Order: sequence, then structure tokens, then C-alpha cells
Amino acid sequence: MAKIAVLGYGTVGSGVVEVLETNKNSIEKRAGEGIEVKYVLDLRDFPGDPVQEKIVHDVDIIIQDKEIDVVVEVMGGIEPAFTFVKKALEAGKSVCTSNKALVAEHGPELLAMAKERNLNFMFEASVGGGIPIIRPLNQSLTADEITQITGILNGTTNYILTKMSQEGSSYEDVLKEAQDLGYAERNPEADVEGYDTCRKIAILTSLAFGSTVKFEEIQTEGITKISTADFAYAEKLGCVVKLLATSFKKDEKVYAITAPFLIDATHPLYNVNDVLNGIYIHGNVIGDVMFFGAGAGKLPTASAVVADVVDCVKHKGRNVMTLWSYEKLELGSAMEVERTFFVRIKDRAALEKAKEAFHAVQTVTVDGLDDEFGLVTANMTEQAFAQAAAQFDVAGRIRFDKTTI
Amino acid sequence: MAKIAVLGYGTVGSGVVEVLETNKNSIEKRAGEGIEVKYVLDLRDFPGDPVQEKIVHDVDIIIQDKEIDVVVEVMGGIEPAFTFVKKALEAGKSVCTSNKALVAEHGPELLAMAKERNLNFMFEASVGGGIPIIRPLNQSLTADEITQITGILNGTTNYILTKMSQEGSSYEDVLKEAQDLGYAERNPEADVEGYDTCRKIAILTSLAFGSTVKFEEIQTEGITKISTADFAYAEKLGCVVKLLATSFKKDEKVYAITAPFLIDATHPLYNVNDVLNGIYIHGNVIGDVMFFGAGAGKLPTASAVVADVVDCVKHKGRNVMTLWSYEKLELGSAMEVERTFFVRIKDRAALEKAKEAFHAVQTVTVDGLDDEFGLVTANMTEQAFAQAAAQFDVAGRIRFDKTTI
Repeated sequence: MAKIAVLGYGTVGSGVVEVLETNKNSIEKRAGEGIEVKYVLDLRDFPGDPVQEKIVHDVDIIIQDKEIDVVVEVMGGIEPAFTFVKKALEAGKSVCTSNKALVAEHGPELLAMAKERNLNFMFEASVGGGIPIIRPLNQSLTADEITQITGILNGTTNYILTKMSQEGSSYEDVLKEAQDLGYAERNPEADVEGYDTCRKIAILTSLAFGSTVKFEEIQTEGITKISTADFAYAEKLGCVVKLLATSFKKDEKVYAITAPFLIDATHPLYNVNDVLNGIYIHGNVIGDVMFFGAGAGKLPTASAVVADVVDCVKHKGRNVMTLWSYEKLELGSAMEVERTFFVRIKDRAALEKAKEAFHAVQTVTVDGLDDEFGLVTANMTEQAFAQAAAQFDVAGRIRFDKTTI
Repeated sequence: MAKIAVLGYGTVGSGVVEVLETNKNSIEKRAGEGIEVKYVLDLRDFPGDPVQEKIVHDVDIIIQDKEIDVVVEVMGGIEPAFTFVKKALEAGKSVCTSNKALVAEHGPELLAMAKERNLNFMFEASVGGGIPIIRPLNQSLTADEITQITGILNGTTNYILTKMSQEGSSYEDVLKEAQDLGYAERNPEADVEGYDTCRKIAILTSLAFGSTVKFEEIQTEGITKISTADFAYAEKLGCVVKLLATSFKKDEKVYAITAPFLIDATHPLYNVNDVLNGIYIHGNVIGDVMFFGAGAGKLPTASAVVADVVDCVKHKGRNVMTLWSYEKLELGSAMEVERTFFVRIKDRAALEKAKEAFHAVQTVTVDGLDDEFGLVTANMTEQAFAQAAAQFDVAGRIRFDKTTI
């Protein structure tokens, strides 16, 4: 019987306890032995909850208990999670976490600590919730050189954009609805500003290329400036607006960005709606592959955490190799990247001049937006776009992503 | 440096050699050491091909060479592949194969042989070509009890059905075109009769439930009876026809079938077209998850085989546990399963009687098919459907699959 401790009895933590109980028998078969939650660390007590007898308030009780093989960290945030995880590894316990902030910030250090000690540090649930993506990248796509990863990695913003698209509602109204439904936090900044998505693409890109992408260096734009007007233009273009995170390799350089993009019906992520996540990967030999499912939620996320626990139990005393070194991956300059843009200009008189400046391939107008027009630009660098845009009163711009499968 | 032998220098075998060469450096990093092809077994010689110096015609040269760690079997068919694989395992070599016939027929025996010897028998490429699906089932969805697997698992038939749907061409014309393009064999029976798909769902179902599904016991229908008339009705119903393989658990019984199904735009496999494969899985905690990509083809399949080789090299002397016992999984009776059917009846005068017999919820007619009509039945068992159908001149029937995500 493997004994584990769960740090944090919030949504994911209670999900982990529930999944281990619900699927006790099948998990025991797959792990080779039973898995029992011995401790749950939380500041709170849970009187009446069956977990109450396992609640401890002092992490050192867990760290010092030699019976504990695996520690599950589902508290979120950097501290005290980072300190607790280090203590657990130092004490000879493998760690499974759903904490993308921790992994994006300290992944290679914690992986190295685990490796030195023949332990494991696993984080399947940190990206894509229940969708298996970390393990496939580590263990299934090993014959490939990955050339592109493009994903919808945040359920909250995808829910908001889907509702805006389908119902024509404003950003503010849909955000409020999402908050009422529990899909968005009261302070939604980490989601809507793209910070959560940015950390996730940093993790995936680091794993795909084997060295560390600093998430702070990834160009990141959120969805707070996307308006109903943008969706009206998008509809005319046969597109939807999605918050994409993408990294790709070109001429031996890796580029990464998190931003809203216009995508049309031929894009593999076009139908990934509501709180679902989807991740598209291109490898130089496998070609296109896509993973799709619930990107968040108590049980899907817990499913991924528990799968990691099972793997840790199966690999007691043996490190499962993960290729992610400290070495920093220098990202190519965002300004070099060539794209097509959609740009809105608040000056009807400037149409001819703008068409020329952006080498426009299409002009779009929307009824009711009579003091502006939209252009689809030619393929141009971000730099060239910025230079052209500086000459006009730009009401907004959204990049196109043209991935097809 | 790990040394391997490749049995069979056909499409997949030459792909394996090519992938190992193309991605030599990244593969070495991921495997922890270089991987070199020392022998290629084939009946033929390949004068002028760089592989010629490695060609051997006698498998025993490979079996007796203690330097060989991993044997790649990509010959296809049961014999001599089965004998060669057993010999390799007995000689202490791990085996990777793309051979679904071999895995469906002898999977548990070969897995047990590998386990006893601390070796590995891996077969990621046997289902879904390059799509990672065997490893996710084995190692990522371990916290879940799988309740449904539904897939488009054969690229050839999906290509044929996609073309018939999009171009209105006849089965015979599209088959010929597929043969000319190399997407279909000169003898297409294994694909178009559903035998290939059936073996693949047998493998996935065995892995999901941990015991052996005999593929011979899976109800299997191919696509040879699907006509342009069926597609005309499908279009009126807002559906496409897909060859699905599906297994699901209900009231502790597992049911499996391979057959053409009508699916509408809300189905997660609706947009899986041409030679692509898609696999939808539902687990009791993860919910819905989907995998999607190139289900066949030289390089995608080779990518999956080489990923297995990398895994074998990383796990030298250590068996990676796979839950698939000899124990036979008794499938529930096909006749018990409840579905909705689409049925075509060649007797306009029988309309009212048929509507009653099938508890029809919808009548469909197509211009030009004036001596018949189509009905969408109520939900009914296969048994009840068969009894009702016996009373009429039935021109065809296709089941509906109603999976939504």
C-alpha cells in the first residue's frame, strides 16, 4: 500500500481524494498496489468531512513521515508551494503537481532535484487539465523534432470568447456570467490577461525543445480589448477569435506568443469551444496530431494528478527521464515574425492610403461601424506592421493564425 | 550506443530507418544514448540503397547477436512475424511492432513473455498510426475507468467515405482512385470489410479493460454496401457516414462493434476526414478526451515505432507494466444493444405499417429514389430492430452514433 499526502484541500485536492476513492480498485490494478491518502494539509479544518481525520496543519508532519512515498501539491501559487515541494523531494518523496505557476517558474530545478534522488517530479495536470499532453510530449513524440505547438490552453477565456461569438454579448457581461458560474475567478486577471496561458505554453515549449523558456519573455496579450465589434468583423471574415498560445521553430529559432487570433473553419482548433482545451502539435515525422478535452475542472484535473501518482508509485526509486534542462532557450524576436493581420482604422478617409501601407488584400466593413473600416493585410513582419500602423488611428488589430490540418 | 534490427524493409521499415537517421540527434538525447540500425531483415536485396550492407536474409543472425537490444517487427501478418518475435523475446531482446494482426491475436502472450524476462513488447504504431493512443491508455488514463472508446481507426475507408460524401462518387470509383493513389491495397478486403478496424478496437478495448477481447467475437460490418443513395439520405439528415469502431461499458458489461454509422455535426468525429484517424475516449473522471492525427502513412507510423524503440532503450532491463491479461473479456450480446437506426424500405405502400413497426420518429425521402423511403427509428434494441425489419423489403440500414462532447 503506497501512502500519499495531499497539500491543499481546495477544488483539485478534494478531487484527488475523490478520484482515489471512486476508482480505488482499478487504480490499485494499474499502480500494482493500493494508494491511500494518509494526510491532507490545509489551513482549514473540515468537520464532518471524512477527510477531517487526515487533516494536518503542519507540513513537517508529512515531510518527516517515512511512510509517505508521494506528495501531491495542489495549493497553487509559488509560495509556500515551492518550499514544500523542495522539502518533500529532499526527504525522498516524489511530487505530483497541478501548479503551472510553480512548474513554469521552477520546473528544471525541481526536475533536477528529483532526478538526483531517483525520484519523480510530475506535472501532467499543469497544462490542459485532464488532457494527456505532458506525458505524450515526453514519451510518445520522442522520435520527432517538434516544429509547432498551438493550443487553446485556458478554459475561462475560451468560454468567454465562445459566448461573445455565439451570443454577441459584451466582454464585461460574459465575464460576469462566467464569474457567477464559477468558470472565472473574482479577480480574473491571470486568465483574461493571458498569464495562465503564457505559463502553459512556456512549459510545453520547454519540454518540446528541451531547454528553458522564460515565460516572462513570451509576448503576451489577453482578451480584455476584444469587443463585440471585433466579433462582427470576424464573422464577416468567416472566423472566430480564440486566445491561442503558440510556439514554432523556424530557421533554428523558436518563437512564442500568447494572444487573441482570428482562425477560420479550416483551423484544427476552430471547433474547440466553451471550457474545452485543444492542443495541436506538428512534428517533422509524425505530421499533425491533436489532443482535445476538458482543460480544467475538478475531476478532469484530478484525473491527471492521480495518473501521475500512479506513475510515481509504479516507478518507485526510478526516475522517469524528462528532457528539460536549465539551459535557457533564447526566443527569436517577436518583431521578426511574419503574419497577416486584421486591422481596424478609425478614419474612412484614410482607406486608400491604408490599403497601400498595409498591402491590404481585403477590405471589410460592418453595418453600424460607419466611422471605421477593417483591412486584412498582406503577410508582413510584426515590425513592418507596427511601422505602418503608426501612421493611422488604429482602433484594434488581431493576428491571423493559418494552421491547417 | 543501442543496436537494433528491423524485420521487414517495406513502407514502415524504411520509414523507421529514415526517422532514426533524420532525427538522430534529438533521438539520442531523448533515449539517453544513440540508436543504430545494425541489421535489416528482408527477403529482397536493395542494391544501391545505403541499407544494403545491413540486409540479412536469416533472422537467426539477428537473434544470435548479443549486441542487439531491440527488434523492430514491421513485416505484418501473423507468420513468420509471430515466430520471429517470440525468438527475439526468448533471446532477451525487447520488441516493437506496428503489426495489429499480431497484437490482436497474440498480444497478452507476448506481453507476458516480455514481462517474465524484464523486457518490453510495445505496439504504439498498431493503432492510430502516429497518434499516441496506446501509451496514453496505459500510462495517462490510469486514474480513470474507461466507459467508452469510439474511433475512426482506418485511413483507407475514411478516405473512401469522405470522397463519397464530398463528391457523390460511387464506392467502386472511389476505391479505384484510392488504389491508384496507394491509399488502398489491390486486395482491399482487410480495410473495406472492417477487419483492420476490428482488430484495432479489440486492442484498445483489451487495454482499457485489462483483459482479452477476442476480435473474432466483435460484430463487424464493412463499408462495401454503402451506396450513393445512403449518402443522399445522410445529407438530408445532416449526417455523414463513418466507419466507427466502438466499445462501451454498460451495467458491468462491455459491448463492441465495428460498422458504418451515421453521425451529425455535434459528434466529435464528424470532422475527421480523408486518411486521418480520430479516437474519442470517455472516462468516469476525466470525461471526454480526443486524439486526432495521421492514422497511417510511412513517417507517422515510423514515428510511433521509433518512439517505442526510444522507450525500450530508456527501460533496458525493466518492464513497463501493461495491464492486459490472458483472461477473456466476455462481450455482451450485440442483440441487446439499444440504438436508433436509419432504415430504407423498398415499398412506398408499406409506409404507415413501417412507421408503426419501427416506432419511427422521422420519415426521409430523396428525389429520384421514388420506389422507397427512409425512416429514423425510435431507440430500440438490435433484436427488436431485426424483428421489425424481417417484415419488410429492407434496402439498407445504418446505425446512428449519438456521442457528443
